[in-house]
Amino acid sequence: MNIQHPYLLFLGDATDPLAVKTSRGIAQWRPEKCLGENTLPGCEISLGLTNLSIEEAVEKGAKTFVVGLANRGGKISQSWLTTILKALEHGLDVASGLHQRLADIPEIHEKAKALGRQLFDVRHATGDFTVGTGEQRTGNRILTVGSDCSVGKMYTSLALEGELASRGVDVSFCATGQTGILISGSGISIDAVVADFISGVVEDLAPSKAANHWHVIEGQGSLFHPSYAGVSLGLLHGAQPTVLILCHEVGRKHMRGLPHQALPDLAQCIKTNLEAARLTSPDVKFGGISLNSSILDQAAALAYCEDLAVQFGVPCVDPLRHGVGAIIDRLSL
Amino acid sequence: MNIQHPYLLFLGDATDPLAVKTSRGIAQWRPEKCLGENTLPGCEISLGLTNLSIEEAVEKGAKTFVVGLANRGGKISQSWLTTILKALEHGLDVASGLHQRLADIPEIHEKAKALGRQLFDVRHATGDFTVGTGEQRTGNRILTVGSDCSVGKMYTSLALEGELASRGVDVSFCATGQTGILISGSGISIDAVVADFISGVVEDLAPSKAANHWHVIEGQGSLFHPSYAGVSLGLLHGAQPTVLILCHEVGRKHMRGLPHQALPDLAQCIKTNLEAARLTSPDVKFGGISLNSSILDQAAALAYCEDLAVQFGVPCVDPLRHGVGAIIDRLSL
Repeated sequence: MNIQHPYLLFLGDATDPLAVKTSRGIAQWRPEKCLGENTLPGCEISLGLTNLSIEEAVEKGAKTFVVGLANRGGKISQSWLTTILKALEHGLDVASGLHQRLADIPEIHEKAKALGRQLFDVRHATGDFTVGTGEQRTGNRILTVGSDCSVGKMYTSLALEGELASRGVDVSFCATGQTGILISGSGISIDAVVADFISGVVEDLAPSKAANHWHVIEGQGSLFHPSYAGVSLGLLHGAQPTVLILCHEVGRKHMRGLPHQALPDLAQCIKTNLEAARLTSPDVKFGGISLNSSILDQAAALAYCEDLAVQFGVPCVDPLRHGVGAIIDRLSL
Repeated sequence: MNIQHPYLLFLGDATDPLAVKTSRGIAQWRPEKCLGENTLPGCEISLGLTNLSIEEAVEKGAKTFVVGLANRGGKISQSWLTTILKALEHGLDVASGLHQRLADIPEIHEKAKALGRQLFDVRHATGDFTVGTGEQRTGNRILTVGSDCSVGKMYTSLALEGELASRGVDVSFCATGQTGILISGSGISIDAVVADFISGVVEDLAPSKAANHWHVIEGQGSLFHPSYAGVSLGLLHGAQPTVLILCHEVGRKHMRGLPHQALPDLAQCIKTNLEAARLTSPDVKFGGISLNSSILDQAAALAYCEDLAVQFGVPCVDPLRHGVGAIIDRLSL
């Protein structure tokens, strides 16, 4: 999967900021890829980009129309169809992060085929995958792991990539979820892969590189989430991480979606992840903790980070508040 | 998936006993389901069942024609096609454990559709799966786990089921691989499920039951196999096991297919499986060790089992040599 940019970000008829979360992530992390936004009548949201018609965007060089919208059920709304078809007619590829596939809507499928445009259903995984082997790879790999789902693994990974790049390090971000894929233009939705291939897909995403190269691999789920731990373990083994970074949200009351399931103890979570990682990466190191501390005020967040840093002997930051420089400072670059 | 029996076992033109391993498993574990075997000219193998033509089998009440063959690449051989089509024409459903789907061969697909027959591609997983929750279930569940792939988890599970049934216990076998599915007539190839649903599929396979019911769940892979550990962990969490049984092959030199990857220490393997299982089954017990001791003579095998039994404080048997009664004796039935 290799999605061409620049993008035109389609916000549809969204009235809820959460509905455009994916597009907002793209605009935040890859502003240079985003030519503008495109809306339907009734849309109450803006990402602060120039509002462009499809014709205007094409004239400015747009390559892909990105349906970075989330809604209940993950369906492609009938009200978006005319606009998606128009994007294809004007020469754009179309990428979508929704559950329903563009390729499963006959009008879209047929038009794309007739015109030679590409459709990217980034939440789905297609391709000739191979089974993982655990064979040792060269280069360096950072993997973000979590105490739970949705604790900031993608955000942290992109912040780590940005900080490494700003220091002139040769770094690549490996996306494993739909928003990450749209941000980076490539990757695989790891939870959509057939179970046999979980680790193999990650081995292919982050292959052997030069000794000074760093892959930053976006983690998924948690070894302690009863719904998704299999995905997390296959991802951990396939990543063969040099360094693990633990992500956690302060104040999370239970595992996401499961009121009966307690969060793991952080010390246990770090220990279990390191032990499992050693199967394919015997020398793996624990590199730091990345917190979402949004429920705390600035002073309390800093104190919380300092406490954890002392307890675990690694840097601890809220990437949104403090950046991730303290974590990068401690890597052997 | 609910495959009707009795079966007619198709051995094709096999000349290698390994090629009919799946059918041999069915004949061994479910002789009452097997009406007979059906061969092509050139077949040099027999399972010791009555050789029946399709017409004869149908007359005796056969319901399903089972392509329980393995070959390089897992393809449906052109030389089998006429016979498979004939089975459909004579009123049989067809089940196959091969990688290539019956449903992907147009002649087979069209004939089955036209005649209203069912095709079972048991290595593939189709259906509306749900995400696991880890919610506590009633009844009892034994799960076989492994130091590696192919160490006797299916054999052990079927032996445990047989022993429980012979003692009058209400027991069900839950198949998670293609041979197990053909043996039991239902189940899911867990490694073919989309990664998000691994644990959820197992929750559905072994749902809440009465307090005196036992599910015996066939394990897959190993938490220590870099290719498949994600499958094994999702299966472990979804199984919510009451009792774990560890399966191991004496003398295995490295993880299956990976000469660079050492076998885990058995104590570590037991500990890691129990710790991971506690996420969804806090009171899980370790119930015994099941060995494939075929490289040892009878006396050495017994001595080996006795040593492990003392070391780990649980029964240790080779199910082929000693049966699994010693393990069942120690369960709280």
